[in-house]
Amino acid sequence: MQIAFLLYPGFTALDAVGPFDTLGPLPGAEAVLVAERRGPVRNDSGSLSLVAEASLAEVTAPDIVVVPGGPDPSGPMAPGPVREWLQEVDRTTTWTTSVCTGSLVLAAAGLLTGRRATCHWLNLDRLAAFGVEATGERVVTDGKYVTAAGVSSGIDMGLTLAGRIAGDRVAQSIQLLIEYDPQPPYDAGSPEKAPADLVAEWRAVDLAQMLTPQGD
Amino acid sequence: MQIAFLLYPGFTALDAVGPFDTLGPLPGAEAVLVAERRGPVRNDSGSLSLVAEASLAEVTAPDIVVVPGGPDPSGPMAPGPVREWLQEVDRTTTWTTSVCTGSLVLAAAGLLTGRRATCHWLNLDRLAAFGVEATGERVVTDGKYVTAAGVSSGIDMGLTLAGRIAGDRVAQSIQLLIEYDPQPPYDAGSPEKAPADLVAEWRAVDLAQMLTPQGD
Repeated sequence: MQIAFLLYPGFTALDAVGPFDTLGPLPGAEAVLVAERRGPVRNDSGSLSLVAEASLAEVTAPDIVVVPGGPDPSGPMAPGPVREWLQEVDRTTTWTTSVCTGSLVLAAAGLLTGRRATCHWLNLDRLAAFGVEATGERVVTDGKYVTAAGVSSGIDMGLTLAGRIAGDRVAQSIQLLIEYDPQPPYDAGSPEKAPADLVAEWRAVDLAQMLTPQGD
Repeated sequence: MQIAFLLYPGFTALDAVGPFDTLGPLPGAEAVLVAERRGPVRNDSGSLSLVAEASLAEVTAPDIVVVPGGPDPSGPMAPGPVREWLQEVDRTTTWTTSVCTGSLVLAAAGLLTGRRATCHWLNLDRLAAFGVEATGERVVTDGKYVTAAGVSSGIDMGLTLAGRIAGDRVAQSIQLLIEYDPQPPYDAGSPEKAPADLVAEWRAVDLAQMLTPQGD
């Protein structure tokens, strides 16, 4: 069972690593970090690089694809090699998944049209514009498409999918081993729960512009 | 405010990336991934590499140090450059922190002696053996030492520390932007909550031996 984690410049590290450390431990799983070219791929802040160990051309039939998001996913959303690769491998995946604005990347490739899916709370409108039934739910499964809301929700997505693939007991083992017993010090993790003025403030900000990577 | 994330072969990716994406966005923060030598550092499963952008010698006075754990942290626990670096930089840090078995690394360097600290639930006895008051709490602050329990608890640690450093509102913003509104599909994230037989099973396993990295 090959699990391909797609990397592209500007991805959010936790989007990729949450599912990596919840799906990667599945029995028989082979995790592979893949990008247009092999080598280091820089994240949204510009201060972290994950290494793609395979190019798109080297990963032709993954069983599972995980697409992380980022503040500005316009690169992988545009026509080009990443979009073509997603369309191609999606034909034979068992599961096609995303975290955060990764669902915009899937939607731009036409893979979510007419389906229910979720996204980072700041981007639900953009998702809907692709003809997707955009929900604010944390993890949405529609057929073989599993999408997660913002950044940290990739952990919940990974555990949910782990349970579907390998059963509750294996998924519970993974949860126990990563000690996922969340105790956030605040209750501000969703636009419904965070202080209203804070939510309004962030709705007015252009995150993609604010986070200027330090270059490559 | 320089935040140094220590990497070493066999680290757990989520241990490092949880704090990275919660502390990294702090105003004025400069995140740097550091290892004995610059270059890719392989994780516990062997299928992921994060790039160290600086060597230990290049990071001499970080304000914050974050030490991730791994199933077998015996490398950074042993006498050698990493331990010496930790002892050296700890003299001037504002905060010295760890996730998971990263607290064993701090303890082996003598930095937690006589202090309260936490660790991955499977390793609390090992932590106590270093003369540490080992608690099962998720995040423990004792002076400038902030330790987190297993793997995913680094997110809670990061948000807790973000609040201490920059105030509640900034920490809540970070929580909102990473949409940290956890909804695990199971309630098995701690040894108290997981099925008892599952907990017993994992207590009987040598994780360090089970997870054999695929080499470098």
